[in-house]
Amino acid sequence: MVDPDEIVAVIGKTHGNGLVNDYTRGFLTQSLAFLISGVTGETPDAVKRRIPFIFSGGVEGVLSPHYSVFTVTESITENAEKALAVGVAFTPELAPGDIGRQRQIDLTAEAVTHAMQSANIQSSADVHFVQIKGPAFTVSDILADADGKPTSDNPGKLMGLGRAASALGVAKALGEIPASRAVEAAIGKDFGAFSSVASCSAGVEVRGNEVIVLGMSSQWSGPLAIEHAALKDALDTAGVRNALSALGFPEALQLSNEQASRLRAVFVKCEASRDGIIRGKSHTMLNDGDIDQQRHIRAAVGAIVASVVNDTAIFVSGGAEHQGPDGGGMIAIIAERTA
Amino acid sequence: MVDPDEIVAVIGKTHGNGLVNDYTRGFLTQSLAFLISGVTGETPDAVKRRIPFIFSGGVEGVLSPHYSVFTVTESITENAEKALAVGVAFTPELAPGDIGRQRQIDLTAEAVTHAMQSANIQSSADVHFVQIKGPAFTVSDILADADGKPTSDNPGKLMGLGRAASALGVAKALGEIPASRAVEAAIGKDFGAFSSVASCSAGVEVRGNEVIVLGMSSQWSGPLAIEHAALKDALDTAGVRNALSALGFPEALQLSNEQASRLRAVFVKCEASRDGIIRGKSHTMLNDGDIDQQRHIRAAVGAIVASVVNDTAIFVSGGAEHQGPDGGGMIAIIAERTA
Amino acid sequence: MVDPDEIVAVIGKTHGNGLVNDYTRGFLTQSLAFLISGVTGETPDAVKRRIPFIFSGGVEGVLSPHYSVFTVTESITENAEKALAVGVAFTPELAPGDIGRQRQIDLTAEAVTHAMQSANIQSSADVHFVQIKGPAFTVSDILADADGKPTSDNPGKLMGLGRAASALGVAKALGEIPASRAVEAAIGKDFGAFSSVASCSAGVEVRGNEVIVLGMSSQWSGPLAIEHAALKDALDTAGVRNALSALGFPEALQLSNEQASRLRAVFVKCEASRDGIIRGKSHTMLNDGDIDQQRHIRAAVGAIVASVVNDTAIFVSGGAEHQGPDGGGMIAIIAERTA
Amino acid sequence: MVDPDEIVAVIGKTHGNGLVNDYTRGFLTQSLAFLISGVTGETPDAVKRRIPFIFSGGVEGVLSPHYSVFTVTESITENAEKALAVGVAFTPELAPGDIGRQRQIDLTAEAVTHAMQSANIQSSADVHFVQIKGPAFTVSDILADADGKPTSDNPGKLMGLGRAASALGVAKALGEIPASRAVEAAIGKDFGAFSSVASCSAGVEVRGNEVIVLGMSSQWSGPLAIEHAALKDALDTAGVRNALSALGFPEALQLSNEQASRLRAVFVKCEASRDGIIRGKSHTMLNDGDIDQQRHIRAAVGAIVASVVNDTAIFVSGGAEHQGPDGGGMIAIIAERTA
Repeated sequence: MVDPDEIVAVIGKTHGNGLVNDYTRGFLTQSLAFLISGVTGETPDAVKRRIPFIFSGGVEGVLSPHYSVFTVTESITENAEKALAVGVAFTPELAPGDIGRQRQIDLTAEAVTHAMQSANIQSSADVHFVQIKGPAFTVSDILADADGKPTSDNPGKLMGLGRAASALGVAKALGEIPASRAVEAAIGKDFGAFSSVASCSAGVEVRGNEVIVLGMSSQWSGPLAIEHAALKDALDTAGVRNALSALGFPEALQLSNEQASRLRAVFVKCEASRDGIIRGKSHTMLNDGDIDQQRHIRAAVGAIVASVVNDTAIFVSGGAEHQGPDGGGMIAIIAERTA
Repeated sequence: MVDPDEIVAVIGKTHGNGLVNDYTRGFLTQSLAFLISGVTGETPDAVKRRIPFIFSGGVEGVLSPHYSVFTVTESITENAEKALAVGVAFTPELAPGDIGRQRQIDLTAEAVTHAMQSANIQSSADVHFVQIKGPAFTVSDILADADGKPTSDNPGKLMGLGRAASALGVAKALGEIPASRAVEAAIGKDFGAFSSVASCSAGVEVRGNEVIVLGMSSQWSGPLAIEHAALKDALDTAGVRNALSALGFPEALQLSNEQASRLRAVFVKCEASRDGIIRGKSHTMLNDGDIDQQRHIRAAVGAIVASVVNDTAIFVSGGAEHQGPDGGGMIAIIAERTA
Repeated sequence: MVDPDEIVAVIGKTHGNGLVNDYTRGFLTQSLAFLISGVTGETPDAVKRRIPFIFSGGVEGVLSPHYSVFTVTESITENAEKALAVGVAFTPELAPGDIGRQRQIDLTAEAVTHAMQSANIQSSADVHFVQIKGPAFTVSDILADADGKPTSDNPGKLMGLGRAASALGVAKALGEIPASRAVEAAIGKDFGAFSSVASCSAGVEVRGNEVIVLGMSSQWSGPLAIEHAALKDALDTAGVRNALSALGFPEALQLSNEQASRLRAVFVKCEASRDGIIRGKSHTMLNDGDIDQQRHIRAAVGAIVASVVNDTAIFVSGGAEHQGPDGGGMIAIIAERTA
Repeated sequence: MVDPDEIVAVIGKTHGNGLVNDYTRGFLTQSLAFLISGVTGETPDAVKRRIPFIFSGGVEGVLSPHYSVFTVTESITENAEKALAVGVAFTPELAPGDIGRQRQIDLTAEAVTHAMQSANIQSSADVHFVQIKGPAFTVSDILADADGKPTSDNPGKLMGLGRAASALGVAKALGEIPASRAVEAAIGKDFGAFSSVASCSAGVEVRGNEVIVLGMSSQWSGPLAIEHAALKDALDTAGVRNALSALGFPEALQLSNEQASRLRAVFVKCEASRDGIIRGKSHTMLNDGDIDQQRHIRAAVGAIVASVVNDTAIFVSGGAEHQGPDGGGMIAIIAERTA
């Protein structure tokens, strides 16, 4: 049983295409806000201001729609070891002209720092996943902000620039890169400047960046732990294995059902490599006019990860600009600690 | 260097959608027929009558377009062990009204038997892969054969019925099921009646069933071997592993580059499970109006297999009706033998 | 200003694909139910039981998302002539096994009769448009009703069977066909049995058939009138013209802006002709694996009607089984009466 | 009967998506080159060097796949009036780095002038249609030309820049704009700089710009005439009517069958308006992640034109950058002259 007052964040995958015209993210946000408000007595708007609902559209291939609800209970407990900690924060509203700009980078960095502090996570090294949902805009929104001079009038491209700026904000806040590289000019150019723990999405259903920081803290207790690892490319099952090993899962081609029952959430970020090549052979994702490259890569990497962890309810998000190594991405896993 | 006179079959993946309106299969067939005819002096039509060109459209996700060329050289060699053998055959032309019917089942069975004999494969147990390409028809083709009473006027559905009938023909020829179950009435009903080695496609570019039988024979020599395994469901990496183990590959999450260099071809058949469930969790492939279920499942299972064998140039075909266990499929792998 | 208490029906076009996995219909329904409930003090569920919200997804090509709100004010007025009248009704819930069955035909017919009576429309000849939204089901819904033996386990096909049964119910209620032809066996076979005023949709967001009857009645007053006409095929601009002429619009290639300002709503039903031919030339809509035939035909016929009436905010719904002549459809137009 | 030696150009619509990964254009080109070479004794390559085959993919909605074959017979005839004239030319090969650049503008202008001269068209005012097919490139092609610094690494975007440069080349050659506006810097900026007769496409199947100029000349005789008109926006049936009127067709909502039998070819260029608005109402074409904007607009404008001319075999091409007024496009019609 979930106590709605204890919910602090929700992350999930919905049925839409995950692109500009995906309304399933907003639909689920609205549905949950009304559901919770009906129990807590808050207004739905107050619920949305209190709880970041971060949904990514697109459950291609074997992926299963689902969402993970994070709840926190206040208690006084002796801690033998660090436990999963969660903090949230919101930036001010962003206009189309702010997307992919220094303002988005800096506001995101501030929000990440704030969320980390509110979670009592002492060190950046203890942060394993930062999920961000920033705003996307339709053509008419973009044109209406002519004064802001948006960096692109292509809605899909602007989504990507926003993901990139958000990722650089995370990297800056956590000290993964020096502030001098967390700049607007690095977007789409300096791919060595990336965050290893950022996962950034965009959607028309939000107007500012919503930030969820997940890490380990000695101020928290509970049965759960989180770890992360880089994915070097789309086939990097060794990366998946690294995250699993850090959580104490034994080596195997695929987790057994019993092992998989320890999993609480799996978050993956990935992208179709920009040079059209994976391990020396060409892919066709970037030339396809029928299926967007993000849907292709989510289907592929989602299935690969699902096959290793023996679970299809994993969060997979495409568009990994400055989120993990170029052409790759990252994975974070929450699991019950072994005894 | 390939000697065009020695080519006996070509199997590959092309760039199209793999559905009714995929013209990339026909384009590549025409291109290769002209290319070969320019060297051998045959007419392009003679080339097409001699060599089955079996292409499957759809290189979703990480998959890489490619084709495998099978060549045979006559020689007199002492054989220490069995080697890869290949045989081909063609059924007579099939009309829309023949698709998914007993006539297609029986003609396919005859052709498989003929191809197996021509390959000097003694036992059905030595057959590891039977690739079939049968005809697909557009709406106007179907309506033009009103006398034949086609089993469906939906072009995509008729493709599926043709794949099913072809698979039952293979199962009958190889004795995988008794003749009493290789009947029209079993199609789409008796899913326990299947072939473990059949991989059936359909395309508008052919008018009869083209059959390629691959197996092991003591009458052949050469460095290659073939093995196959069933895939129980979309996440069945253990099945992939079974085929690899039969070929002597050591256990690993992923083949190393050196190990993968032994691979010559990987053929996979798969399908979106009919009940909308994979290992207890729902998938959305059957309800998607934007991306066909076959494109979803090829992207997913193709990526999973690619991640295990460390190669993206694998042949993955969707629509596994009566080809492997229901909801799963099969895999066949050709590799250089270990010394 | 709309008084929410006076709203009796809403019909509109939303941004989704109009197929099984279109959640924009449900999203708008939920949004409006909450919006209205916030003003009237009803619960959102009570709003949904009182007001049929009938949305069709898919604003392809030039079409513009929009919705038409029908409000009714009680008054005592002398009537010189008949005016637009509206009545609504709901059938009981329908299970997957009811779809495309006699039960759906008969319950729909009863609901139409009921809605017509509640609208005080005396004669069937005065009914010009009957909009129905019936339930659609996903694969898992369909499989869960195994006892009901649904007529198809293909969600998209089942939507079409439901539209057909609903249309036959309308035709039966209005006496357009004898009850002996309004039978389950006629579906997909007896295409001469159709309703000239029915427009039927299906969506996962409803569980019974929701019925809106629009016609002319001397019991009503107001500035609006409605007329309808058959569309013989996808290019039948003469049909569009017939409906306009009945409302007193002068002949023209395209209405002027001033003329178009009289329009209040335009409803169109259309389909890709089953034989793959329009006026002797082939179309490709039925063979396309990338874009569903309904999206194609809505884009085409929607644009044609928009070009004649000089307005892109028109309701266009695909899937015209037994709704207008085979291969065509129908059009109904609400406009201010000329003085 | 067509004499293959007399064929000078072929223009048509094929079944593909009309985007980067459309191989139906190349397939038909190859098929016709082989067909013609089999009769004339030329090599297929020589046929392709002699005859421009310009195919546009995408027969959305009611559109019918077809191609128009232009043949020319030498004769000595007294001319009472001007008749349809055709001239062709080819630019040198263009690399990815040339696309959307001054070099493409200028080479195209030279080729247009050359084609016009070869057609003996005396005045620019007599040119009514210039069809150009330029090269498109996949991601790997683009990356391989890093020295050329291609203006975009997005294949679809590069196609658009190439269409724009080609159109400016036509406008320059015909004196529609001064040379000072036919510059690289005008692309995507100075939308007042456009050609009223240009229709530009791009495809991976060609490597230079192929140019077909159609106009009227007193040096030619024959029963055919060509006229053109601007399309101000997607609903501009008055523009269609203008072209018809110039050819002597009487006013009508739709041509009768007898009238339509005079038509020989209809060419249309159109685009989804950049501001997301048509006549004051929003469209959704630019925000759609499932269907490309070009497929939407071809379906819509193609259907509108088809409904006016009573023929679905019309050539409709999307992507009208600098081809006709911004947000609109152009139409050219070839018809038998009235007696």
